[in-house]
Amino acid sequence: MKLLETINDPSDLRMLPRTQLTPLADELRQFLLHSVSKTGGHLSSNLGTVELTIALHYVFETPHDRIVWDVGHQTYSHKILTGRRERMNTLRQLNGLSGFPKRDESEYDTFGTAHSSTSISAALGMAAAAKLKGEHRHAIAVIGDGSMTAGMAFEALNNAGVEEDCNLLVVLNDNDMSISPPVGALNRYLARLMSGQFYAAAKTVGKSVLPGPVLDLARKIEEHAKGMVVPATMFEEFGFNYIGPIDGHDLDSLIPTLENIKKLKGPQFLHVVTKKGQGYKLAEAEPILYHGTGKFNPTEGIIPATAPAKITYTEVFGNWLCDMAAADPRLVGITPAMREGSGMVRFHAQYPERYFDVGIAEQHSVTFAGGLATEGMKPVVAIYSTFLQRAYDQLIHDVALQNLDVTFALDRAGLVGADGATHAGNYDLSYLRCIPNMVVMAASDENECRQMLTTAYHYPGPAAVRYPRGAGIGAAIQQELTSIEIGKGEIKRKGEKIAILAFGSMVAPSLGAASELNATVANMRFVKPLDLELVKQLALEHEVLVTVEEGATMGGAGSAVAEALAANGIVKPLLILGLPDKFIDQGDPAALLASVGLDAKGIAASIRARFGAAGEPRLVVNNT
Amino acid sequence: MKLLETINDPSDLRMLPRTQLTPLADELRQFLLHSVSKTGGHLSSNLGTVELTIALHYVFETPHDRIVWDVGHQTYSHKILTGRRERMNTLRQLNGLSGFPKRDESEYDTFGTAHSSTSISAALGMAAAAKLKGEHRHAIAVIGDGSMTAGMAFEALNNAGVEEDCNLLVVLNDNDMSISPPVGALNRYLARLMSGQFYAAAKTVGKSVLPGPVLDLARKIEEHAKGMVVPATMFEEFGFNYIGPIDGHDLDSLIPTLENIKKLKGPQFLHVVTKKGQGYKLAEAEPILYHGTGKFNPTEGIIPATAPAKITYTEVFGNWLCDMAAADPRLVGITPAMREGSGMVRFHAQYPERYFDVGIAEQHSVTFAGGLATEGMKPVVAIYSTFLQRAYDQLIHDVALQNLDVTFALDRAGLVGADGATHAGNYDLSYLRCIPNMVVMAASDENECRQMLTTAYHYPGPAAVRYPRGAGIGAAIQQELTSIEIGKGEIKRKGEKIAILAFGSMVAPSLGAASELNATVANMRFVKPLDLELVKQLALEHEVLVTVEEGATMGGAGSAVAEALAANGIVKPLLILGLPDKFIDQGDPAALLASVGLDAKGIAASIRARFGAAGEPRLVVNNT
Repeated sequence: MKLLETINDPSDLRMLPRTQLTPLADELRQFLLHSVSKTGGHLSSNLGTVELTIALHYVFETPHDRIVWDVGHQTYSHKILTGRRERMNTLRQLNGLSGFPKRDESEYDTFGTAHSSTSISAALGMAAAAKLKGEHRHAIAVIGDGSMTAGMAFEALNNAGVEEDCNLLVVLNDNDMSISPPVGALNRYLARLMSGQFYAAAKTVGKSVLPGPVLDLARKIEEHAKGMVVPATMFEEFGFNYIGPIDGHDLDSLIPTLENIKKLKGPQFLHVVTKKGQGYKLAEAEPILYHGTGKFNPTEGIIPATAPAKITYTEVFGNWLCDMAAADPRLVGITPAMREGSGMVRFHAQYPERYFDVGIAEQHSVTFAGGLATEGMKPVVAIYSTFLQRAYDQLIHDVALQNLDVTFALDRAGLVGADGATHAGNYDLSYLRCIPNMVVMAASDENECRQMLTTAYHYPGPAAVRYPRGAGIGAAIQQELTSIEIGKGEIKRKGEKIAILAFGSMVAPSLGAASELNATVANMRFVKPLDLELVKQLALEHEVLVTVEEGATMGGAGSAVAEALAANGIVKPLLILGLPDKFIDQGDPAALLASVGLDAKGIAASIRARFGAAGEPRLVVNNT
Repeated sequence: MKLLETINDPSDLRMLPRTQLTPLADELRQFLLHSVSKTGGHLSSNLGTVELTIALHYVFETPHDRIVWDVGHQTYSHKILTGRRERMNTLRQLNGLSGFPKRDESEYDTFGTAHSSTSISAALGMAAAAKLKGEHRHAIAVIGDGSMTAGMAFEALNNAGVEEDCNLLVVLNDNDMSISPPVGALNRYLARLMSGQFYAAAKTVGKSVLPGPVLDLARKIEEHAKGMVVPATMFEEFGFNYIGPIDGHDLDSLIPTLENIKKLKGPQFLHVVTKKGQGYKLAEAEPILYHGTGKFNPTEGIIPATAPAKITYTEVFGNWLCDMAAADPRLVGITPAMREGSGMVRFHAQYPERYFDVGIAEQHSVTFAGGLATEGMKPVVAIYSTFLQRAYDQLIHDVALQNLDVTFALDRAGLVGADGATHAGNYDLSYLRCIPNMVVMAASDENECRQMLTTAYHYPGPAAVRYPRGAGIGAAIQQELTSIEIGKGEIKRKGEKIAILAFGSMVAPSLGAASELNATVANMRFVKPLDLELVKQLALEHEVLVTVEEGATMGGAGSAVAEALAANGIVKPLLILGLPDKFIDQGDPAALLASVGLDAKGIAASIRARFGAAGEPRLVVNNT
């Protein structure tokens, strides 16, 4: 690692002779592999961008020139080369380095990127600002082929293509894979661009260091000679100067090409072909397995667990989906490019006709489900809480307004751990609850999750079930597909004076807190419609009420209880517990929940702090 | 109108000989013009789709075949031909016909469409359902060129292109205009497709009734002959069979082409060229003026008002934008294709370099603003409340999480009148309030709107100002650019026992109600951060609290007050007034507000019903 250790900043990198860059890439790849094997994290995509990262920082004057990394989980090399090498052992941990670019972390992290397809918009904003301010700088968006399928990337291309005097470079990192295998017409199109002689010719051209326009001209001539086989690319039709495809692992192609591009004006589009997992045979062979890893031994590779781990909520959903599909031929399952993450691998294998991976296209996924529902199909959209934010208007305008029968399975609700604030599913209760016609449930254990999915499925309108990341409490799961009554909670523990109204994942810690305080605990189950009878009963029988949810308290489940009390003229001390009004960074989920007082101990402490040991209300103002 | 009167259903239309269709189109256009001139509504776009509508219903077996009209404001001909001719005089009025397709209204309205770019997704869902159910039917999306710029249309194309055995037809209605003038690379591309001999040749081919594949082949040969001039279209690159462009006002082109397409399998793309306002010279000349009209005399056309009407909030914003731009060169104004609707015509003229119309691309607009903000620019995004739903994730992930300095001017907050439920801005308070770092204001009059915009602009993080559609109360407007204190409300009227905490547009009717009840009224101004001191003070000095907002009560401003009371241990009777938990159809805004009890009379009545005449709390459960 003797070369890598000399690089504390990209300016050090830019001092190296070109001949040393390939040895540096080898060291960097080794460092990455060993670092990620110790911390866990995204491996395949980072191994794939080693040379591209070196080349960009070598050619461009970072941080004066701005690099925006789309879905920034491939930025480990970037972090290592920009002064964070020694902190890589803290990656994705509490108070450690984020797994994504983060503006607070480094001036080299120009824009926080974790959700897909934002990079071209952000970089275009930077390029437009430079133009307005009369500053000469390059703004570079590095975007994967998977991210190109999301609509906002096209919105940005469409806008950028007419900004002829902006110094914007879009680097398409084409590795033929988002997280799930690639889908859609664009991917097929890119494969066509890369196929055959054309690609080989472009590689050669790249190596001979022709300037970009000549390269481009050579391509056009070649195309013309071949007639209609390779038309002017789609990207040129959007107004970009298209260059490529070139080999993204070949520094002798990358660097001269980037140096030439640097001299050009207007929107440039460089098509780079890389391989996920490059240089680590195990990851090259199974890039999905090595996409996001835990700790592992690099020599042995990832060893599948022999003793089965506790079943995750994702698996509960995946099993339910297969079982319900067997019971009802109308069921169709839809994922926006998250087959593995959403637990749909088995469903895809068993029901390929009824499985739809629509690409990274949350907006389309929801309206597509709406279209299916109008024809009497029963669509189930599996989507993370944080990604449903992308389809919020479609949920309102296309599904809820028409009261269409779509089931939403919201995985990763609440805090998500290592992915941090960008991926937190903290807002769904607030943003769903205000929409008319919605039914919103929060699962407190695995079996209830299965029951709620069945309930949502049978409910003839839009219904969402939220469940957290990871494993549940270990509840036994009934195989029968049973429903629960809409809008009915249940009392889990009878106590006195204090009633805890708990939602979803907070039922378990609330029970822990309640045993200390001899409080009643209700598992409310429904955030909408709220169980008003239960709220009234609990209010009548107790001196104080406490709500607990794993979500933003503003507008959330506790807020629903407050509204219900007000609407029913019930005047009662109420303590609303949940996530505070701030973005929460990465860390171990249990530790994070404890840090915001959402473990049993914290819940009990908050109740005691507010009401005293015996649930004695401490009031500022008494009822009139 | 003798032909038109015989058409009560598309089956009547399909009985007509081809020769009668052109006379029918003439009658339909006359009917449309006179009908819209009496009710107001969308004129230009409906005049442009007369022939296309006739042709689609003539060739396809509607309602068995499904037509989905994108941004369905061009469906008046469709409504007239599908049994709703005699109800056109009720258009966009309370209990009348909707200005958009509506599933409740007719079996011919297959999908509710009012926001842009949903049609391909919905139609693909219908086509996929037909395939799964083994039903033979066509699903047709009719989409304008403006709508094609929104990302979700591309997401749908990308997905549809690989569904090779779905009978999906996308009709691109290319009229070279969304609402504002067209922008972006796609539009330029379409213009290139239409230019020159190519278009003329295609028209001739259409007339000679060559079947689709031959037409397509002819085009390919022509292209090849011309070398690189017209490459294979982008739509073919997405996997569609591209046909066109053809003249969308020429039934002799349209009908044979559609008949041929009907016989083809797999995703088809028909490019039709129409003219907004076609057949009415005044609208042809000024399609933007005639886009959405009030009542007018068709002979005279729209006559600009001589006496200036009361200033609208949109104009308050437009004036503020120009004034602030004059004061601060860092200001940039961004609109997603709503220059006229958002009041940015003058700003565009005066500051063309700092004006960005990004197309119908709400997602991109917000992240683009984020990129500009990272470079020290001061972006102002002008967007309707209902359309910000499209950029919800971008607001959270790209702007709020990074605490970037972006000002959001939210027009059309609350009920919007004639456009109905699809355009209602009822959810912004709920969906914005839960996001950390956001400042959220609601303007109670024109001057305060200007002050709040200044406040938001100077606030160094994300801040939104919501204001209603139309004119305000007629408050005098100070020219000076002044701020108000963040998180501070004001008492507008001192009364006793009852305190009304009013937000935005509800301050005026609350004052009306208060004079009857001798209640105190506070203009709360900030939904976030809420003025806690004022809430506490009002709670201490009054027996009951009432909140009033023009927005969904679930998670809204009243809910914020309920949370604040709970958090501060204040136990007090609270009545939360606002919009009920249902979608509200079109109608006169004042009548709609009265119907949900949000006029002065209704507010007073609700308070009396709950608390009695003198603010005597009627409680179900007393405080312990």
